[in-house]
Amino acid sequence: MELIRRAIEMQSWAAAARRNGLTIGFVPTMGYLHEGHLSLMRYARESCDRVVASIFVNPMQFGPQEDLAQYPRDLDRDLNMIRSIPVDAVFHPDASEMYPAGFQTRVEVTEVTKALCGHYRPQFFTGVATVVLKLFNCVQPDVAVFGAKDFQQWVTIRRMVRDLNLPVRVEGRPIVRESDGLALSSRNTYLSPRERQSALALSRSLKLAQDLIDGGEKEAGAILAEVRRHIEAEPGNQVQYAELMDPETITPVNRVEGPALLALAVWVGKTRLIDNAVLAAS
Amino acid sequence: MELIRRAIEMQSWAAAARRNGLTIGFVPTMGYLHEGHLSLMRYARESCDRVVASIFVNPMQFGPQEDLAQYPRDLDRDLNMIRSIPVDAVFHPDASEMYPAGFQTRVEVTEVTKALCGHYRPQFFTGVATVVLKLFNCVQPDVAVFGAKDFQQWVTIRRMVRDLNLPVRVEGRPIVRESDGLALSSRNTYLSPRERQSALALSRSLKLAQDLIDGGEKEAGAILAEVRRHIEAEPGNQVQYAELMDPETITPVNRVEGPALLALAVWVGKTRLIDNAVLAAS
Repeated sequence: MELIRRAIEMQSWAAAARRNGLTIGFVPTMGYLHEGHLSLMRYARESCDRVVASIFVNPMQFGPQEDLAQYPRDLDRDLNMIRSIPVDAVFHPDASEMYPAGFQTRVEVTEVTKALCGHYRPQFFTGVATVVLKLFNCVQPDVAVFGAKDFQQWVTIRRMVRDLNLPVRVEGRPIVRESDGLALSSRNTYLSPRERQSALALSRSLKLAQDLIDGGEKEAGAILAEVRRHIEAEPGNQVQYAELMDPETITPVNRVEGPALLALAVWVGKTRLIDNAVLAAS
Repeated sequence: MELIRRAIEMQSWAAAARRNGLTIGFVPTMGYLHEGHLSLMRYARESCDRVVASIFVNPMQFGPQEDLAQYPRDLDRDLNMIRSIPVDAVFHPDASEMYPAGFQTRVEVTEVTKALCGHYRPQFFTGVATVVLKLFNCVQPDVAVFGAKDFQQWVTIRRMVRDLNLPVRVEGRPIVRESDGLALSSRNTYLSPRERQSALALSRSLKLAQDLIDGGEKEAGAILAEVRRHIEAEPGNQVQYAELMDPETITPVNRVEGPALLALAVWVGKTRLIDNAVLAAS
């Protein structure tokens, strides 16, 4: 497994693979890996001849008040986990390699990023779209694999790829959960044992919403009020958003009459967690 | 010579060339070609195994009050001229092929686009950067060739390519002029014979500025006042901007003590013309 730190070396590696007719699968990550990331790498391993993972905590997608400095990092642990897949190359550039002096280009996907995380983190998706495009240009993948936990990110990247004619197939893979339902996240490491208990309300509320729909409720407002009540019944939980959205356009759904994305962002103490499910109409 | 109208067909053509180990040179144009465009295509012909030219009048770079509808078009004439190079493929998509329903992605290069044309045409460089990136993704060039007449565009594309890690070499080629000095432009077709006479003041003023510098003048303000006076002495001419700029950063130069871009935009009657030269310090 090669560890590559320079963009130009990553490009040479990718060009050599492509010259040999090999397909490249790519999993971009911010490191501090968990089984969710590994599931994406396994999918890439099955789909392509070569697999590249990137580990890059992208400063451009963090706001000034956010957790860039504290974001958990452990490269040795990450590399050990990645070796188990196995992955062929890990791209791990410095921030100064990705954003050298004079850097001044931004990629914006304007509509699908308006609501949800895009509303509360105004710089977030511009940072994500820009870095993912840069990573694509370094890794030259045939297939790029994203986790459905960051649902709006997946939709944004799909839209960017289509809009910019990128020759990349974007695949989304299901959320991986602990046995008690908690969606895996690098930020779960911030949670105290008590907070971790409170955090279980997120995944439970997704199930609750589906049950309400199965019981005949169609009004988004009524469903969301129940979801919010359920989450905030646990100590330390505060809902940032709980929304029912069209899963393609990320615009609000008033009545659940087709597949609807229930998207949650919740402050559990000082930790912000997200979760989601695409609910089926009854 | 192939005429290709679909992005996906352009990509297949490019992928086939690359699989065969052939390099691709690319010249993006808005059509209504002149010798300036052809000089770019000849350069691409000499530099690469395969040459692609695109003809696409890009709606995204025109403002609501600008000349999108009137912009001159003559595909048969263009194709005849291109055949003389010869070029291997012409990519000529519809606007609906490049911007289908739901399109919502924009690429912005933020600093080098602030002044000059970027100041007076606020949507212009976002439209240019976005479409050029899309065209690059369709044509997959090794080398892309731009004319120095659109100097700020060339700098913007160079910056975008560096910032986004695009595996493309960007080449700029000199302005091609009529024997009397008029820079070739598709928009010259808008000029009446009298306006064409007035338009000669642009190129003359570039020479005048170099003469002033050679004579010992270093103050940008003094040089630009002379340039402006010279241009507006002709009937129907109105200077939109005349600026001395750092040719890399496109920020103002107060004293000419190294290479300085003299950039002009002038209304000649109802036609807006641009011209420029990089002046040498004395």
